[in-house]
Amino acid sequence: MIEVDISNIWGQVSLPELLSLEAEIAAAHQSLDEIIGSGNGPAALPQPESIPELQHLLTAAERIREESDVCVIVGGGSACLGAQSAIELLLGPQFNLRSHGPEIFFTGSHVSTRHHTELTRLLEGRDVSLVFISESSCSPEPKIAFRNLRWLLERRYGTDEARRRIYVVTDDTQCPLYRMAQEEDWDCFSIPRDESGRFSLLTAAGLLPMAVAGIDIAALLRGASRAWETLWNLRSFENAAWLYAATRNLLFRKGCTLEILESFEPGFRTMGRWWQQLFAGIGSADGRSLVPVYAELPANLRFLSPVICQAPRSLFETMVRFEPSGLPLTILEDVRDPEDLNYLSGKTLDEVQLQACLAALDAHTDIGISAISIHCGPLSPEALGALISFFLLSFAISAIALGIHPFRGPDADAYTHNLLSGLGKPPAHG
Amino acid sequence: MIEVDISNIWGQVSLPELLSLEAEIAAAHQSLDEIIGSGNGPAALPQPESIPELQHLLTAAERIREESDVCVIVGGGSACLGAQSAIELLLGPQFNLRSHGPEIFFTGSHVSTRHHTELTRLLEGRDVSLVFISESSCSPEPKIAFRNLRWLLERRYGTDEARRRIYVVTDDTQCPLYRMAQEEDWDCFSIPRDESGRFSLLTAAGLLPMAVAGIDIAALLRGASRAWETLWNLRSFENAAWLYAATRNLLFRKGCTLEILESFEPGFRTMGRWWQQLFAGIGSADGRSLVPVYAELPANLRFLSPVICQAPRSLFETMVRFEPSGLPLTILEDVRDPEDLNYLSGKTLDEVQLQACLAALDAHTDIGISAISIHCGPLSPEALGALISFFLLSFAISAIALGIHPFRGPDADAYTHNLLSGLGKPPAHG
Repeated sequence: MIEVDISNIWGQVSLPELLSLEAEIAAAHQSLDEIIGSGNGPAALPQPESIPELQHLLTAAERIREESDVCVIVGGGSACLGAQSAIELLLGPQFNLRSHGPEIFFTGSHVSTRHHTELTRLLEGRDVSLVFISESSCSPEPKIAFRNLRWLLERRYGTDEARRRIYVVTDDTQCPLYRMAQEEDWDCFSIPRDESGRFSLLTAAGLLPMAVAGIDIAALLRGASRAWETLWNLRSFENAAWLYAATRNLLFRKGCTLEILESFEPGFRTMGRWWQQLFAGIGSADGRSLVPVYAELPANLRFLSPVICQAPRSLFETMVRFEPSGLPLTILEDVRDPEDLNYLSGKTLDEVQLQACLAALDAHTDIGISAISIHCGPLSPEALGALISFFLLSFAISAIALGIHPFRGPDADAYTHNLLSGLGKPPAHG
Repeated sequence: MIEVDISNIWGQVSLPELLSLEAEIAAAHQSLDEIIGSGNGPAALPQPESIPELQHLLTAAERIREESDVCVIVGGGSACLGAQSAIELLLGPQFNLRSHGPEIFFTGSHVSTRHHTELTRLLEGRDVSLVFISESSCSPEPKIAFRNLRWLLERRYGTDEARRRIYVVTDDTQCPLYRMAQEEDWDCFSIPRDESGRFSLLTAAGLLPMAVAGIDIAALLRGASRAWETLWNLRSFENAAWLYAATRNLLFRKGCTLEILESFEPGFRTMGRWWQQLFAGIGSADGRSLVPVYAELPANLRFLSPVICQAPRSLFETMVRFEPSGLPLTILEDVRDPEDLNYLSGKTLDEVQLQACLAALDAHTDIGISAISIHCGPLSPEALGALISFFLLSFAISAIALGIHPFRGPDADAYTHNLLSGLGKPPAHG
C-alpha cells in the first residue's frame, strides 16, 4: 500500500497548520463524492465494473501479439502517455529491444514530417497492427497520423486484411469514426467520455496498449481498485491521498510555486510526464500557479542544485520510491581499482541507491527545502495500479480544495481553436 | 545562421528597456573575453584547434562500428547527455532500431539495479565496446557502471581482447584511471578540465559517441566554429546570442521565473534536457530563480495551457524552429473520411506544423505571454553545431550579466559530499 512520509516538511510548515486543513480536505472529498454521484465526473474510476470488458481486451491484445512485428498506438491524450509510462516502468525503457512481443510505437501527439518519416521506415517489411485511441475528437494531430497509417495498411494488405489489423478505442459513439468502425468491422472499444482526459488511463484506452506489451492488466486493475476503495473509504489523515493533497496545498499556500517529482528509476521518466499532465492546472485566484516538473535522480541533481539553492522556499520535492528489486547487484573488490571504488566492495547497488536518496534529501532539507516521500512497495503491476489510483484521487482532492474543478477540460483551448481556423476547417464540422 | 525573433515580447517589455541593456551585455561579453583569455574558462570552446584530434576520433569510432553490435557509453556529465541529444535529433529518437551501425546505450547517471539488469540483458550474446567518459572524477555513479561493464567484457573476451574494446575520455591525467588506461593500452583521449561541465560537448567527450553513431562530426564542428566566430566578433544587438541573452535577462527582471523551451520535433526532447542543465543556475541575489523547463509541442500544450493561463506574466516561452525537411508528406482526400479531415486535403504536414506553431504563439501571446523564437534553418550537423555554439555563448553572457560565473561548478555539491560520507569513502581518497 502507498505510504506518504512527511517527516521532511516541518521546517516550512507546522503540525497545527497541517491539521487545520483536515476539515477542508474532508469537504473536498465529499464534493468529489457528489460530483461522481451526480454523473458529472468520469465514469472511469477504477472499480470492479471495469472488469467485464477485460476478456475482450485480452483477446484483442493476444491477436495483435500473434499477428504483428510492430503495433502502432495512435493517440494524443493522457491515456496513451500513461500506457507508455506503465510499459516503460514495468518492462524497462528499452522494451522495444526485448526479443519477445511486438515492438510498440506511440504516435499522434506530434506534427512532424521527420517523426512520421522515421516511423514509416520502422514499419518497412514488418507486419503491423494499428490501434487508434481517439480521446479528444477535435484535435487533428492524431487523426492525421491515423489516416496516414490506415492507408499504409490498406495499401500493404488490401482492405480486407487491413480491416482485421485496425483497432479503435473511442469516447464518442456519435462520430464518423465510430460509424466507420461499425461498417468496416474494426475491433472497437468504447469508453466513457472524459473531458479532462485525466481519468482515462484505467479504461480500454490505457489498458489495451499495456496488454499488447504483455503487462498483466488484470493485476494492475486489481491493484488500482483495491487502492481506490481503501483510499475512498478512509476519511482522515491516515489516508495517504489526503495527506499528500493537504501537504502540497499547504506548501503552495506558503509560497511554493514549483513541485519537483523525483525518482531514482530511469523507467519512471514517462510516468513523470504523465504525472505532470495530471497535476497541471493547480493555481490560485491571485495568479500564482503550482507548476509540476519531473526530475530524474541522481542524473538531474546538477540541474536541480542551482535552482533549489537560489530559492529553497519557493519549491518542494516529492520523491517516489520503490522497494529494491529481487536480484541484488554487488560491487566487487578489484586489485587494480582504477575507479577508486574499493571502499564500496561488497555493497549492493540498492544500498548505494538508498545512500544516494538520503544524501539528496539531507542536502536539500539542510537548506530548508520541504520534501514529501511516497513509498510504493515493490514494483509490480498491482503496485503501479495502486500508485495510479493514489495520484488520481490525490489530484482530485487537491484541486477541489483549491477551488478547481478536477474533471473539466482545460479552458484554454485557444490553441485548438486557432489551429482549426488557421487550417480552414469548415465550421459546420466543428 | 541562427536568427532570434523577438516580435512577441512587446506586451511585457519596451524597446527602450531592451536597448538600455546593450552596454551591460557588451560588458558581459568583454568579461567573458577576459575569463577565457586568463585561462580560467574552459579551453574547450569550438575553435579550429579542436580539429587535430579529429582523425584519432574518427579512427576509434570506425573501429567501434566495425567490431560491435552494441556500444555502451558510460558517463554522468553533460557531454554524454549532449551527445545523446545530437544523435536523437539528427538520426531520430529510435536510432537504435535502424538496421546499420551498432546500438548505442548511455549509462552512468543512474543508480538503479533495474536499469543495470536491463542493460546487461541487452548485451547478452552481442559484441560490445565500452566508452567511459570520465568527466567528474568524484562522483561514484559512472564509476560503478564502468567497473561492472569492464568486468563483463573481461569475463567475456579475456583481458587482451577486452582491452581493445575499452575507450576512455578523461579530464584528469593524474587519476588512477588514466594511469591504468596507459598501462592497459586502452584507447584514450584527454580533454581539458571543465569544472562546470557545460562546455565539454564539443570535445572528444561529446564527439566520440556522436561519431560512433555515424554523425559527421567534422561538419558539426565546422558549423560550431563558424557560428562561434561570427557570434564572438559581432558586438551589437545584431548578434543573436546577445539578443537572446538580453531578452531573457530582461524578462527575468520583469518577474518571469520560468523559461519554457519548446520544439515541435520529438527528436529535440533530450536536447531540451541538455539545454535545461546548461541554463540551470540563473538567479538573482534576492532569491528569485529563472527555472528552465522543456516542453514538446503540441503534445505538452495540455500541460502548458493551465500553467500559463494562471500566471502569464511569470513565465516566457522560447520556441526553437527548424526549416521543413526535404520530403513533404501530403494529406490526401479520402471519400469515406472517418477522421473528418478532408478539409486538409492537399496540405502537407509541414504546413500543418506551421499553423500549429502560429496557433500556439497566438493563443499564448493573446493572454500576455512573451515568446522568443529561435530559427535554426534546415536541420543538419552544421546547423546543430551552430545551435550548440549559440546556446553556449548565450548562456555565458546571460549569466555574467546577472553576476553569475558561468564556468564554476555548482556550489551545492552537498549531495556528493553526503553520498561519499554515507558510503564510507575514506577521506584520503577524496
